[in-house]
Amino acid sequence: MHTPFTGELLGTLVLILLGDGVVAGVLLNHSKAQNSGWIVITAGWAFAVMAGVFTSAATGSPDAHLNPAVTLGFAIVSGDYSKLAVYIPAQLIGAFLGATLVWLQYLPHWSKTPDQGLKLAIFCTGPAIRNAPANLISEIIGTVVLLFVIAAIFSKPVMGAGIPSTLGPYMVGILVWAIGLSLGGTTGYAINPARDLGPRIAHAVLPVAGKGGSDWGYSWIPVVGPLAGAVVAGLLIKAFI
Amino acid sequence: MHTPFTGELLGTLVLILLGDGVVAGVLLNHSKAQNSGWIVITAGWAFAVMAGVFTSAATGSPDAHLNPAVTLGFAIVSGDYSKLAVYIPAQLIGAFLGATLVWLQYLPHWSKTPDQGLKLAIFCTGPAIRNAPANLISEIIGTVVLLFVIAAIFSKPVMGAGIPSTLGPYMVGILVWAIGLSLGGTTGYAINPARDLGPRIAHAVLPVAGKGGSDWGYSWIPVVGPLAGAVVAGLLIKAFI
Amino acid sequence: MHTPFTGELLGTLVLILLGDGVVAGVLLNHSKAQNSGWIVITAGWAFAVMAGVFTSAATGSPDAHLNPAVTLGFAIVSGDYSKLAVYIPAQLIGAFLGATLVWLQYLPHWSKTPDQGLKLAIFCTGPAIRNAPANLISEIIGTVVLLFVIAAIFSKPVMGAGIPSTLGPYMVGILVWAIGLSLGGTTGYAINPARDLGPRIAHAVLPVAGKGGSDWGYSWIPVVGPLAGAVVAGLLIKAFI
Amino acid sequence: MHTPFTGELLGTLVLILLGDGVVAGVLLNHSKAQNSGWIVITAGWAFAVMAGVFTSAATGSPDAHLNPAVTLGFAIVSGDYSKLAVYIPAQLIGAFLGATLVWLQYLPHWSKTPDQGLKLAIFCTGPAIRNAPANLISEIIGTVVLLFVIAAIFSKPVMGAGIPSTLGPYMVGILVWAIGLSLGGTTGYAINPARDLGPRIAHAVLPVAGKGGSDWGYSWIPVVGPLAGAVVAGLLIKAFI
Repeated sequence: MHTPFTGELLGTLVLILLGDGVVAGVLLNHSKAQNSGWIVITAGWAFAVMAGVFTSAATGSPDAHLNPAVTLGFAIVSGDYSKLAVYIPAQLIGAFLGATLVWLQYLPHWSKTPDQGLKLAIFCTGPAIRNAPANLISEIIGTVVLLFVIAAIFSKPVMGAGIPSTLGPYMVGILVWAIGLSLGGTTGYAINPARDLGPRIAHAVLPVAGKGGSDWGYSWIPVVGPLAGAVVAGLLIKAFI
Repeated sequence: MHTPFTGELLGTLVLILLGDGVVAGVLLNHSKAQNSGWIVITAGWAFAVMAGVFTSAATGSPDAHLNPAVTLGFAIVSGDYSKLAVYIPAQLIGAFLGATLVWLQYLPHWSKTPDQGLKLAIFCTGPAIRNAPANLISEIIGTVVLLFVIAAIFSKPVMGAGIPSTLGPYMVGILVWAIGLSLGGTTGYAINPARDLGPRIAHAVLPVAGKGGSDWGYSWIPVVGPLAGAVVAGLLIKAFI
Repeated sequence: MHTPFTGELLGTLVLILLGDGVVAGVLLNHSKAQNSGWIVITAGWAFAVMAGVFTSAATGSPDAHLNPAVTLGFAIVSGDYSKLAVYIPAQLIGAFLGATLVWLQYLPHWSKTPDQGLKLAIFCTGPAIRNAPANLISEIIGTVVLLFVIAAIFSKPVMGAGIPSTLGPYMVGILVWAIGLSLGGTTGYAINPARDLGPRIAHAVLPVAGKGGSDWGYSWIPVVGPLAGAVVAGLLIKAFI
Repeated sequence: MHTPFTGELLGTLVLILLGDGVVAGVLLNHSKAQNSGWIVITAGWAFAVMAGVFTSAATGSPDAHLNPAVTLGFAIVSGDYSKLAVYIPAQLIGAFLGATLVWLQYLPHWSKTPDQGLKLAIFCTGPAIRNAPANLISEIIGTVVLLFVIAAIFSKPVMGAGIPSTLGPYMVGILVWAIGLSLGGTTGYAINPARDLGPRIAHAVLPVAGKGGSDWGYSWIPVVGPLAGAVVAGLLIKAFI
């Protein structure tokens, strides 16, 4: 049970349990974290990434991507696309299961929260201003920053001298904090197709008390945007790093 | 005086002095930290864990668990249950003494705070929505994440290459920050029987000005939940890491 | 494409994309980060510095300055002024491009935000109280702290024993967080001529919806102040470190 | 100019410039950081300690204490009291100069802030509830935690294996964040006689616009409390670490 597939699945599960979990804490009625704001949401997602990467590395993934855009981007850099067929399904299943655990963790809170939009926002992202081209651009820019700076962190001049392997996941977590704080105001920084699609499916199939629609009309943007960003980032990394 | 017993006792004392201390700062009237919110409470507990682990490691504990659930979970992983009889009493006594120091630290503030529920909340956890099965599930999920990701942090692929020993306690502190931010909204993340029971006993026996009852009806949940979570986590760690 | 020029350009681009980006997130109407406060702005700029330094180091700059004041200050310390002619144009172009990407990232938000002053504040700094000598002093003090403590961090007694190279950029990021929190209340801590002038030019030339003037009357202070601070810091570093 | 005296002086100067600076930013009218709360104040002091320790270590102090209580406590541990006569005057002078720079940094803001109590609170600490024995206890407990956990951080089991020297100052900064968050609500955590007395003298002698009295009646508590705490901590460290 110690394979790349389980590693990607469990890492993404932890990512979404803690990531969607912080949004649940901030948005659901009666939560002790209710209305605690953007610093809490972005810190929660940052540490969710860190914990997910630790988990993934410990349970069998040599890469700990947790994100199809990361897998695609570094496949473009290396020219080896063989991991996509294993990693991406694992990431999607992990994201679905993580979102399911968030539903379980906050079980009595759903029926106390009438706003259907808030409940959907716990599972997946939505735009501050609905505008497909602008929303796509936002997701592309965020994903390019994610992949390009990850490549920078693990480049020879930065980590090449040999580093304690704990520091990598921490620095990536801080990078995601940065992206959330600075670029997340527009579309909620999906920057990861599995992070959005897996929990959106969970929202659609789980018996979430008093839920509304799953906004499938928007759902392609946090998939296509990050994948397009991965292509751009892969080319930029090959050119500049 | 440099034994595992003193190490676990002093580490848990520091954990609770700083952990319950931050809740006192946020909830008590006239405190300079009053109403400073969830980011302050969760950051305070995170750094309390870090400081407690440093203290415990320096004063004689080879494990710096500070938490009966951690001790039980890793006993299940290793198959060696001999430490439970030493560590758990030390953790409970340390937690009781830490809570006593919080009472002393904020001595003139208790009589200025009429709300009995707030005063109890400084010592021990309570549910956002009282629902025994749901509250148990919350404590189980939080504890599983705590133990599983700790095991991941200290696993071979993450820290096996040899790391500066300061980084471990820091990363565990950040992990507790993550759990608080993301999963704490429901039951206040006890995820540690000593953290809840020791200070609850302190609340019951100390002459806290204008205190109310100690809510013994709820007290079994933050004990049973984390211990059940430890069993689940122990089995998952054996299976996956 | 892997030269000191591209390294300084790309690092400063990332610095400003994430740095001006966090101000956009906090100030623009409809942003999910709107009104999230000083802790968000200062954390965003801190992690922007960290991400920019990682990027710069990975893409060809042996110094990762991202700031003409840093380049000037350390030229004074070393006596070698040859890098100024390469680094400073790269930093200015990078800052201009980073600000352009912020405009693109938040594209539909500009027309929804009537306040012209807020829109300018996303691009460049302005004084809390307009007072040229006092504003100059503020920028000088902030820049001296930046350069002097950077020199301290990379000094022999602190990092001389050999450190993981990831830690340097992180510590510099935290230092910028400190300067923002503690000294930024007066002029918004430009402490970097490129950080202010590049985005101010972008504000002037980009078709930002409903923009006002670019406050050129103030623009010399965040250029002259940091450069004067660099001279003071260079002399102090030579004397004391 | 590279001596232990200059090292302690410059380190404490940076500590107070950034530490008192963050209080100025939060309390003074028209400051961009006004009313940004307890998380900002405690983070600012934490990073001020980190920056001060880096500075002190780089400019000649082999210890980077910045605090008479730390100097006294570790003199008790080592039995060597020879450093007190050099370090303590340097720390006081550095604190006075740091506070003077804060006054300069925020020069136009003092006259815009009518509240005399707020202006004093920028320079030195005051009690949330005035009660000499309770206030003394608060300062003693805070100082004991500071010294004991510092000793733990630098103990053999934690850092004995040899650590990157940058991590020590960072961990001490996070520890001070913890003490501020958790124990600072009562007296504002002086936990350092120089931090309180040096800036209080500066408040008394500088021409701060519209200032009131310097509250000399309280001034002995943040001196005596931390020194008493240092004695307690010194004995506890000898007994337990």
